[in-house]
Amino acid sequence: MSRIAYVNGRYVPHGEAAVHIEDRGYQFADGVYEVTAVVNGKLLDNEGHMVRLERSLGELQIDMPMSRAALGVVLNETVRRNGVRFGMVYLQITRGVAKRNHPFPKNVRPALVVTSKRAPLLLDPDAVPGGRAVTMPDIRWGRCDIKTVSLLPNVLAKQKALDAGAYEAWMFDPDGFVTEGTSTNAWILDREGRLITRPLSNNILGGITRQTMLRLARENGIEVIERAFTVEEAKEAREAFVTSTTNFLKPMTQIDDAVIGNGEPGETSRRMLGLYAAYCHEATAA
Amino acid sequence: MSRIAYVNGRYVPHGEAAVHIEDRGYQFADGVYEVTAVVNGKLLDNEGHMVRLERSLGELQIDMPMSRAALGVVLNETVRRNGVRFGMVYLQITRGVAKRNHPFPKNVRPALVVTSKRAPLLLDPDAVPGGRAVTMPDIRWGRCDIKTVSLLPNVLAKQKALDAGAYEAWMFDPDGFVTEGTSTNAWILDREGRLITRPLSNNILGGITRQTMLRLARENGIEVIERAFTVEEAKEAREAFVTSTTNFLKPMTQIDDAVIGNGEPGETSRRMLGLYAAYCHEATAA
Repeated sequence: MSRIAYVNGRYVPHGEAAVHIEDRGYQFADGVYEVTAVVNGKLLDNEGHMVRLERSLGELQIDMPMSRAALGVVLNETVRRNGVRFGMVYLQITRGVAKRNHPFPKNVRPALVVTSKRAPLLLDPDAVPGGRAVTMPDIRWGRCDIKTVSLLPNVLAKQKALDAGAYEAWMFDPDGFVTEGTSTNAWILDREGRLITRPLSNNILGGITRQTMLRLARENGIEVIERAFTVEEAKEAREAFVTSTTNFLKPMTQIDDAVIGNGEPGETSRRMLGLYAAYCHEATAA
Repeated sequence: MSRIAYVNGRYVPHGEAAVHIEDRGYQFADGVYEVTAVVNGKLLDNEGHMVRLERSLGELQIDMPMSRAALGVVLNETVRRNGVRFGMVYLQITRGVAKRNHPFPKNVRPALVVTSKRAPLLLDPDAVPGGRAVTMPDIRWGRCDIKTVSLLPNVLAKQKALDAGAYEAWMFDPDGFVTEGTSTNAWILDREGRLITRPLSNNILGGITRQTMLRLARENGIEVIERAFTVEEAKEAREAFVTSTTNFLKPMTQIDDAVIGNGEPGETSRRMLGLYAAYCHEATAA
């Protein structure tokens, strides 16, 4: 089955899917995006993604290109046309096409691109592999709460992590507190068995998976504290993991050179992934 | 004459000029750009732009898509095909097209887009209008010295300035020192008649016009000090102005609510623009 993309009102073969060179997404990173997991052919937590999308667009004063319901139809249709049962659907909305100039152009229509692809989704707590995070200063801008396509700083940090043989970069603020990963939220389990993750602010993205994990932990009697933690605290934590739409939960078994716990995915990390897996199946059952 | 754009090896009508939706410039702001002024049909200071371009690409580990000489041919040909005698030529180089994933993809070819358009270039020191700058915190990332298309923070600041009825935003760092404008470098003339502009660092873009202005000032006996200045200093300055490739030099006759000098373009600002105009004519003479 060949890939199909939705581009500004048309479903087109992926290879021919194009946008104008003066689309402001291309010249100014003037746009936002969302990635929703597809589980059993269904969109997972799409309501949360749509709420965040509308918030991101609002912060940039870009209109929704269509109603939330119509957008849902496009997302599902793109998933269907690509035959995706397990994977993701990606949507990008930019301010539109206009003669290059910094200020917001007048009378432009927002551009909408949607793609979908299959991807392995790891939901088995007993088979999830651990990974390593390396820490580095967070040099991103002051509005990381907006899910924009202005992702170059994240790309550079992720590549730096890979070059260091790691899976993810954990970035820290000027006071030494971890903000988040380049495409994930960061969590630790402290010595008292409490989950700790940074509270929402302008400095981190409000992850949809983060939000669901918070709820699942609380519903299942796992204490969670939303507070910032330092790199040093993370290195001495009992467990550490990242969450994201496509990772769900991935244990970090090493941070820089510090081995976390016994170097294997920890009990609470695996329990959280198990709870998440159960939620996924329940939320996407026919 | 209809507009023509150069896109990845072909000259195409502007309306049909497109890039793939998975060009990393569109999804990750993973690319750089340059704008060169066209004066009398010639590229102004293009050598400086090429040096800066290669530096930006180097910082992102993107290869030049062709030799500097070949790129010069493309720039000049795009200018010629668009019949531009006074205006600008814009080039954008991105990492290329790849399946969406944060890390640098392997074996991709950088993408190159070039456009050119006419624009009024204001070189008459006696006719240059002043403008107003409003100040706001600089919330951009830590590598503003790289000329990337990750420009959303600049767009938002510029729009905020326009919404406040101003021409430009002067951004300041956490210590209250002006970094630069959203698309310009910032200068003041102090009470002792010395030009002051922030030295190069990771926090500002090394403007080509800034560089030429520095040289012209020094060659003509105008003292210049490269040091950071505060918003308060700027408000009490004798003169203030911005420089950029397409503005050349534009006096800032008001900063926030403070009128600078007598509210008209100052003597040294006009003298600097006169020197620049003379240089432009000399550098682009047949």
